Amino acid sequence: MTNFSSDCRGFEKSYHAIDLSSFGIREGISEVIVSTGFENPNAAPIGVITKGGKPFVRLFKGSHTWTNVAKERYLASNVVYDPLLFVRSTFFDLELSEFEYVPAGGLKFPILKEAVAWVVFECVNVKNTDQALIAELVPVEAGFNEEHRKDLPVPNRGFNAVLEATVHATRYQLTGEEKYLEWIRHYETLASKCGSDEEKKAMKLLYEVLGI
Amino acid sequence: MTNFSSDCRGFEKSYHAIDLSSFGIREGISEVIVSTGFENPNAAPIGVITKGGKPFVRLFKGSHTWTNVAKERYLASNVVYDPLLFVRSTFFDLELSEFEYVPAGGLKFPILKEAVAWVVFECVNVKNTDQALIAELVPVEAGFNEEHRKDLPVPNRGFNAVLEATVHATRYQLTGEEKYLEWIRHYETLASKCGSDEEKKAMKLLYEVLGI
Repeated sequence: MTNFSSDCRGFEKSYHAIDLSSFGIREGISEVIVSTGFENPNAAPIGVITKGGKPFVRLFKGSHTWTNVAKERYLASNVVYDPLLFVRSTFFDLELSEFEYVPAGGLKFPILKEAVAWVVFECVNVKNTDQALIAELVPVEAGFNEEHRKDLPVPNRGFNAVLEATVHATRYQLTGEEKYLEWIRHYETLASKCGSDEEKKAMKLLYEVLGI
Repeated sequence: MTNFSSDCRGFEKSYHAIDLSSFGIREGISEVIVSTGFENPNAAPIGVITKGGKPFVRLFKGSHTWTNVAKERYLASNVVYDPLLFVRSTFFDLELSEFEYVPAGGLKFPILKEAVAWVVFECVNVKNTDQALIAELVPVEAGFNEEHRKDLPVPNRGFNAVLEATVHATRYQLTGEEKYLEWIRHYETLASKCGSDEEKKAMKLLYEVLGI
């Protein structure tokens, strides 16, 4: 069982009461898995962009994440160090059993059991463009999963290579351009050389998805 | 001041008493900054390779790290999330004030104040080849710096790009091959897009070092 400790005491908490960097939302683009959907839980890798301490997201139209956020205006960031979960959540629906529910917005919101830390955000000042939805994020709840904090993360070029390969794989699926396959093959070599078995499994799945 | 908590109670501690993954030494290649030198403290990024739970290093001849380890048979892994420190320790000597001393081998061994976690290793079964020294690593002391654990690390493609650029920069310095500059320019774009100010400063320094 997971063992979540929430640092939250209520929904009236002010914006600044949650120290986002303690929960892995930091300046620049934090590559997290975003969970959404009070009704239909979904998870997908998203970069949460933070500029001057203010987090926001850009969600492309048509994705499950976009559908859920457009309707419900909530999302959760999940800090995850498991490369296979990044690949799986990019290309497949996760199992319902992989979600845990936490209080948010007066209801129960899905986060990932595998998350080391999570923040539920309300999406405000939502703007829609032809291609995307842009929303500012106001944190309403946050917590850690102490069980998953035990292993200290360390920079690993193999893990990083899986992330890059995943980005290039989605672009390859959209465009079919050969140059993305070249990137992916480069990163497969790196994941194989520098990664653990987890990185190798993740790249194997990614190759299967692309049929290469 | 730093606030180190050591989990060690003596030098007779057995190999398995230190849970290396808690201190950031994990399967695959852990990209840490290695500090060495009871007499002449030095720091440089090194990949600690772990296979089947057994960590080892390959140190190229001629480096300060190689000189210190060949003579003293000790090194410390320092888990660091600061991109500028990776670049600085690749190309420059760090200030003496950036080291902290911890007990190891009956003496005081230098680790980095900026380390989130550190492990002092004794180097055993040392083998010398024409180009390198290969040593198995036996942990003798380990600790955390709680102050630096506050900010939770999150995957950031900008940080990862700085690591890759640093690897390619050392290869460029060795060979002068243009292809490495192309990689570096690619990663500069990524660090600029996805990183925080720290990643941008790190890439700026790397560009200055290479004179590009």
